[in-house]
Amino acid sequence: MSLHVDLETFQQKYKQKVEDMMIGFVTEKDMPSPIKESMVYSLEAGGKRIRPILLLAVIHGYGKDPQLGMKTAAALEMVHTYSLIHDDLPSMDDDDLRRGKPTNHKVFGEAMAILAGDGLLTHSFQLIAEDTLISSDQKIKLVNLLARCAGPEGMVGGQVADIEGENKRLTVEELESIHIHKTGKLLIFSALAGAIISGASEGELNKLEEFAHHIGLAFQIQDDILDIEGTEELIGKRTGSDETNQKSTYPGLLTMEGAKDKLRFHLDEALASLSGIGMETSMLEEIAHLIVNRNH
Amino acid sequence: MSLHVDLETFQQKYKQKVEDMMIGFVTEKDMPSPIKESMVYSLEAGGKRIRPILLLAVIHGYGKDPQLGMKTAAALEMVHTYSLIHDDLPSMDDDDLRRGKPTNHKVFGEAMAILAGDGLLTHSFQLIAEDTLISSDQKIKLVNLLARCAGPEGMVGGQVADIEGENKRLTVEELESIHIHKTGKLLIFSALAGAIISGASEGELNKLEEFAHHIGLAFQIQDDILDIEGTEELIGKRTGSDETNQKSTYPGLLTMEGAKDKLRFHLDEALASLSGIGMETSMLEEIAHLIVNRNH
Repeated sequence: MSLHVDLETFQQKYKQKVEDMMIGFVTEKDMPSPIKESMVYSLEAGGKRIRPILLLAVIHGYGKDPQLGMKTAAALEMVHTYSLIHDDLPSMDDDDLRRGKPTNHKVFGEAMAILAGDGLLTHSFQLIAEDTLISSDQKIKLVNLLARCAGPEGMVGGQVADIEGENKRLTVEELESIHIHKTGKLLIFSALAGAIISGASEGELNKLEEFAHHIGLAFQIQDDILDIEGTEELIGKRTGSDETNQKSTYPGLLTMEGAKDKLRFHLDEALASLSGIGMETSMLEEIAHLIVNRNH
Repeated sequence: MSLHVDLETFQQKYKQKVEDMMIGFVTEKDMPSPIKESMVYSLEAGGKRIRPILLLAVIHGYGKDPQLGMKTAAALEMVHTYSLIHDDLPSMDDDDLRRGKPTNHKVFGEAMAILAGDGLLTHSFQLIAEDTLISSDQKIKLVNLLARCAGPEGMVGGQVADIEGENKRLTVEELESIHIHKTGKLLIFSALAGAIISGASEGELNKLEEFAHHIGLAFQIQDDILDIEGTEELIGKRTGSDETNQKSTYPGLLTMEGAKDKLRFHLDEALASLSGIGMETSMLEEIAHLIVNRNH
């Protein structure tokens, strides 16, 4: 069997399966209807589902059936979804819209949005625990890793550092640390979870962690670049939101040219970390290029 | 070895150990200091720690070392603590004080309180996953059970139902359903987790679940009774907060005499469910009596 699969085909197939898994899991549970509606609303809000796709692409790259990672991939996307609901709250980023739809608290109120986030976070661990396709040892490794990547040492800590850094001029190191925690850690979970499910060696886990670390930073640099160049191309649109919000950004700290150099550096490092690894890496390379070349 | 231990002695010893375990776990982790302070603040806020004590008392009753349940007990109390932080938020119960101290968001702000709650919930699963004294199979059972008891099918669902039931006259069945979810499910986790760690049989798990179910309802009925009788005894104190908040209560729905009958019924049922169980039950009986006879 050839492992060369087109990322777009793979993504279309598994994006739908991950969404069905998440929504099916929540829908079949017995709970008060307002919280079920609130949870499903945000789970349906879409996006590229890049995290679960990376997780499943790693499993595919090891020649295993991505189906083995479906529950973990759905759990991961639930954690990402909970973090968006809580980040959008009035006391945090106070966002009214996400991907063109009203944010969760705008539709269901603040209390329900907080509880829906709590519910999704709790369900993510339940989904992994209820998986019947992998061993208890693997499940416990995944629970532990997910907690470390999503919790105060990971994503939640990154959100705290981001709030603390508002309206301050950060150093590049401080900015990088925020992004490593806020965005990078869940991408690291994506890659490592796929490897744990595939039974990869310690050495390969290290290489995949390196890969995810660099694409996470590349992702964020490209975000900052798009916030400026995206708007420059669209006449009549206001100045980039980062500048409006006085956020420290890579172009702001390094100039646009410096930011683009750094973007290329992290892409090169990401690709280099895959060399010599015992798996088919073509889809992972595609994901890295996709992150750097995306225009939205 | 005699298993007859005085509850108060047991509680004093293990209350401290559970607190040390929770605070030690958070303190040693690498995270931004504002969230660490916020998490530790609420973990230190005290209380009777009745949930972890019940969990450890079950293990003791099976003749095992309560030390085996220490991480799970600390995880459970972290979940309870996170739920208090989120319940106190302005968009929920909007409480300024808890046990005489300012609530978390009053000290650290709303954003940090939400994130501290998220962090404690995430850490609770990590604590169980990192336990080295029990098997992966046991840990996965505990993760699954904790998620079901704490999440939208359990405690979080109870909080939703409680919010939905505000300013409505509920039936006794509706009131009971709220309490079973909001308070009862974590007490059920306490008893069942102790049994899982002790290797109890399915039949014994069922009896302990029954026990916890009834003491959970007794706990809530006594809460409602104290909200009225506690104030009647203390001259100059305002009318009970339940009446002020127009909350449905057992005395309100059943009369005070009816509520006291129901309290005795649940105590009797709790004690009856322990009969014929293969463990020393004296501390569990003491806990049931303590819940019914407490005056605060």
